[in-house]
Amino acid sequence: MAGTDTTRIQRTGGPTIILVEPQLGENIGTAARAMLNCGLTDLRLVRPAKGWPNERAWTAASGADRVLDAVKLYPSAQAAVADLQHIFAATARDRDMVKPVLTLPAAARAMRQAAAVGESVGLLFGPERTGLTNDDLMAAQSLITIPLNPAFASLNLAQAVLLVAYEWFRLADGTPEAVLPQGDSRPATLGELEGLFGQLEAGLEEGAFFRATPMKPVMWRNIRNVLLRAGMTEQEVRTWRGAVKALEGKRGLRMKSEIEERLGRKP
Amino acid sequence: MAGTDTTRIQRTGGPTIILVEPQLGENIGTAARAMLNCGLTDLRLVRPAKGWPNERAWTAASGADRVLDAVKLYPSAQAAVADLQHIFAATARDRDMVKPVLTLPAAARAMRQAAAVGESVGLLFGPERTGLTNDDLMAAQSLITIPLNPAFASLNLAQAVLLVAYEWFRLADGTPEAVLPQGDSRPATLGELEGLFGQLEAGLEEGAFFRATPMKPVMWRNIRNVLLRAGMTEQEVRTWRGAVKALEGKRGLRMKSEIEERLGRKP
Repeated sequence: MAGTDTTRIQRTGGPTIILVEPQLGENIGTAARAMLNCGLTDLRLVRPAKGWPNERAWTAASGADRVLDAVKLYPSAQAAVADLQHIFAATARDRDMVKPVLTLPAAARAMRQAAAVGESVGLLFGPERTGLTNDDLMAAQSLITIPLNPAFASLNLAQAVLLVAYEWFRLADGTPEAVLPQGDSRPATLGELEGLFGQLEAGLEEGAFFRATPMKPVMWRNIRNVLLRAGMTEQEVRTWRGAVKALEGKRGLRMKSEIEERLGRKP
Repeated sequence: MAGTDTTRIQRTGGPTIILVEPQLGENIGTAARAMLNCGLTDLRLVRPAKGWPNERAWTAASGADRVLDAVKLYPSAQAAVADLQHIFAATARDRDMVKPVLTLPAAARAMRQAAAVGESVGLLFGPERTGLTNDDLMAAQSLITIPLNPAFASLNLAQAVLLVAYEWFRLADGTPEAVLPQGDSRPATLGELEGLFGQLEAGLEEGAFFRATPMKPVMWRNIRNVLLRAGMTEQEVRTWRGAVKALEGKRGLRMKSEIEERLGRKP
């Protein structure tokens, strides 16, 4: 086709996950679930110990069937990555080989950079207990180390897949970092806040709150600051005006009852 | 004690994890394992469904016993966080309440900021299927949303704990982002590399590799660049010099055998 560059390999949606000799169907299923949690769908298996397909994987995947249904099988790690360009291997052990070891966050950035220019990425994970062999690692350009408590760093297979897939996902996530949902309301205007403040100040004056008069400006500033910091909605300002009014009403009732008590008549 | 400020609360090693009505002992155990993976040790339970202690938790914790052995029980989410200062709640559902919703990375930064000035942090997680109730959320100042594939965002309890604890841990991890382990060797000097390059260039000249003479400088630069990019060690340079020599030896043997063939004498 005109303009088609056949030396360029089609970009997929995200890194391919390759599980080498996974021992349990459950772990394949939970790994598939973790992948789909993070938007990854291309799962490859090298010699799964209990054969394939394995019913237990589907049970454990909690609905991530589309990942399991599309699984591809390979005879070796090398065969499983033969069509991929950037291969990273997750390995906890120190290896006697000269290969770059990247932290997971740095590796995720490298994966994103590759994907951004249409290049494919593969992530190799070894068997649950033993990890990848040096032979498996022949296929990887870089090793990934996951920063964890050095005194207790053992992750299960699905958790390792989850952390790696999550780092990939979070780099491109566009969720606003902090939002304040306000339902049907909106942030109060400063005028609305001043209305509440005026009512509150008058009520406090009446209640003789500001006894130490020279301190009043400081005390009043501190009280206002709490409500200013809270970032109130218009609805909340109205609720609080009602609440202050109710407190004043209670004070009125209490004063009435005190007067009646002093006069000897119980209400 | 002189200088002791009793209004300051003792800082612990990291956020406290509070599981509200966890349904299965296994999930408590795998959550404890995920916590210890990320250096967290303070686990609190609110009304665990199967009672406490629960043997299955210890089995699932894969050795994170010190977290389980120190678990504290509480009658409510409010009681469990009463001595803590900054409370975040992990909740997937949208709530009809005006509370800041932070992404997990933003929440982790806020937790680190609090911890840096000696303030305590609590993280609330709800029951496996139903999540935290609005009553439980009364105790939280902020909600955490974990960025995940919106089409498949359901995590199990331990995976949610793992991601939150991991974000906390990774912010303070000092692992160098990329290292190249070199065993007993060291990076080659440029002089050592030029030794290899000189040998290689001479061998290629002899082998008539640079037939199109005007292209030689470009071809040779490209070949050198590959080895320069690889960041070779001194040991690797020596290995490669041996390898190039072996190739030249093979060429010699092949030429010998070709000459012998032409002369009609098989070796």
